Amino acid sequence: MPTLDRQDQVFVLDLGDGENRFHPDWIAAVNAALDEVEKAEGPRALVTAATGKFYSNGLDLDWLFAHADRHLDYVVSVHGLFARLLSLPVVTVAALQGHTFAAGAMFSLAHDVRVMRADRGFWCLPEADINIPFTPGMSALIQARLAPRTAHEAMVTARRYGGQDALAAGIVDHAATEDAVRATAVELAGALAGKAGDTLRTIKSRMYAPVLGVLRDPENPLGD
Amino acid sequence: MPTLDRQDQVFVLDLGDGENRFHPDWIAAVNAALDEVEKAEGPRALVTAATGKFYSNGLDLDWLFAHADRHLDYVVSVHGLFARLLSLPVVTVAALQGHTFAAGAMFSLAHDVRVMRADRGFWCLPEADINIPFTPGMSALIQARLAPRTAHEAMVTARRYGGQDALAAGIVDHAATEDAVRATAVELAGALAGKAGDTLRTIKSRMYAPVLGVLRDPENPLGD
Amino acid sequence: MPTLDRQDQVFVLDLGDGENRFHPDWIAAVNAALDEVEKAEGPRALVTAATGKFYSNGLDLDWLFAHADRHLDYVVSVHGLFARLLSLPVVTVAALQGHTFAAGAMFSLAHDVRVMRADRGFWCLPEADINIPFTPGMSALIQARLAPRTAHEAMVTARRYGGQDALAAGIVDHAATEDAVRATAVELAGALAGKAGDTLRTIKSRMYAPVLGVLRDPENPLGD
Repeated sequence: MPTLDRQDQVFVLDLGDGENRFHPDWIAAVNAALDEVEKAEGPRALVTAATGKFYSNGLDLDWLFAHADRHLDYVVSVHGLFARLLSLPVVTVAALQGHTFAAGAMFSLAHDVRVMRADRGFWCLPEADINIPFTPGMSALIQARLAPRTAHEAMVTARRYGGQDALAAGIVDHAATEDAVRATAVELAGALAGKAGDTLRTIKSRMYAPVLGVLRDPENPLGD
Repeated sequence: MPTLDRQDQVFVLDLGDGENRFHPDWIAAVNAALDEVEKAEGPRALVTAATGKFYSNGLDLDWLFAHADRHLDYVVSVHGLFARLLSLPVVTVAALQGHTFAAGAMFSLAHDVRVMRADRGFWCLPEADINIPFTPGMSALIQARLAPRTAHEAMVTARRYGGQDALAAGIVDHAATEDAVRATAVELAGALAGKAGDTLRTIKSRMYAPVLGVLRDPENPLGD
Repeated sequence: MPTLDRQDQVFVLDLGDGENRFHPDWIAAVNAALDEVEKAEGPRALVTAATGKFYSNGLDLDWLFAHADRHLDYVVSVHGLFARLLSLPVVTVAALQGHTFAAGAMFSLAHDVRVMRADRGFWCLPEADINIPFTPGMSALIQARLAPRTAHEAMVTARRYGGQDALAAGIVDHAATEDAVRATAVELAGALAGKAGDTLRTIKSRMYAPVLGVLRDPENPLGD
């Protein structure tokens, strides 16, 4: 389960050491951690990271198939998490030490900065291959954060980007060796801790107002 | 006139060996070919190509000046073709072996991937020079597929991009020698034939919902 | 104060030799210069430039604090200037010989092309640091002209870009030595003087219709 730690001005949220899929309990734990980061005062920033082979594999499809009647509420909660992270009033850095797939990849795009392991692991939106179309909210998030050509390639072809590919495509901002991923993210976050506050929240909220509007619309989250 | 061929899983639509302008009969033939591609089943992809010096020079201005009373219907039909290609439920690759101008260039942007001859031929939006402003639907299409800076330069300055220029600007995805353009496109399309289907249609339709809305709006297609 | 000069087909508007902040008189002088450029006929283009260490430091905060009761009208007038420049029916080139900050940087983004001094001076949106969030109109302008990743970094982290950094990030189109900045801008503008006219105005107005709509909306310009 996700655990929150603090190193000086940088909160580090470890998303777990498994596939770190979005089980409802996992979502609740991440939201509780974001509560703590938000209610803290003064200069601060957030790094999300994970341990092992995966950063996150996205939606918890096992749980979802077992709880089909809660599908809409579940998607609304995932959209809400994306929206919250996208407009968080502190700088956020994702340390992608392992596979970052599907909703896990979208979660990474809701951060301000991404650092990815250079030599192993993939960032991928496999939706076109697994027959789960992006919701309108997911589409809006991805397209707001990536260049048009990159968003198109990632969404239509389900390409698996290694660290150097992801850097070249502008999906991530830095590629680093395995042991430097988290340290680089913490260093970048620390240098930007002074930006925390209401002005930053307003800046992000206005930049992504259309995306946030779609993500937070409880009506028809699947766009069917 | 356009002719459709099939090589294993890849349909190849040859747009013609002249200037391949959008005469109403040409548009009807392209739509008939897209009907065939759509109604086929299983893994498949589409390459559009042409023979000779031109991929396409765009609108058939001679026909248009001779049929001024049909101007609006004509523009609606061109918009409809762009919209259809942009949301086609198979991967589409444009093999740009020759000049790709104006509406021909926009047609190329409605594909998923573009391969352009490296050493000769231009991709160009000459509208600023020939005093035919982009319709709102054309503007929306171009701006949805190109980076902001590239769209601005192409639309405002009418720059003629050679193959290497177009690759550097992110207008095309690959530049190839003359004899490799079509083969490269067929190979890329073949590798993505497995993406065909309703999920792909939904993904593209949601990504470009605002553009498709403008292109398919029969009211005031010229934006006057 | 701003002064307008003409060199053959190129108007050169010198924004001043101080910080060139947007005092109401400065805004009026720039608008008067744009009137003259607009009402001229035939091939023509516009270069904006300045003299000394600053291109422009943006809003005149001293004046603004002394005239808090005119805050809304002031912001409306700044938005109006951005909108006018963004849709001007001639090609516009900004020659950034010195610091280009905040609303000065936004003003530069409303041009078609930017040339920046390579070795000294910064292009920067410091709003996140000085607790003045971007208005919705400013946000829309910046995001329409920069790649998503660049807009995000510039707006959220308040990064100061030197000339080479700004070129690499796609904020400016050319970096030049100090003595070549203005000459390069004049040469680029001269080569595009033939684009002037109503078609160009229509092209720009349609490309940026959503931005222009926000910038020209007199209701709630601060977005509060």
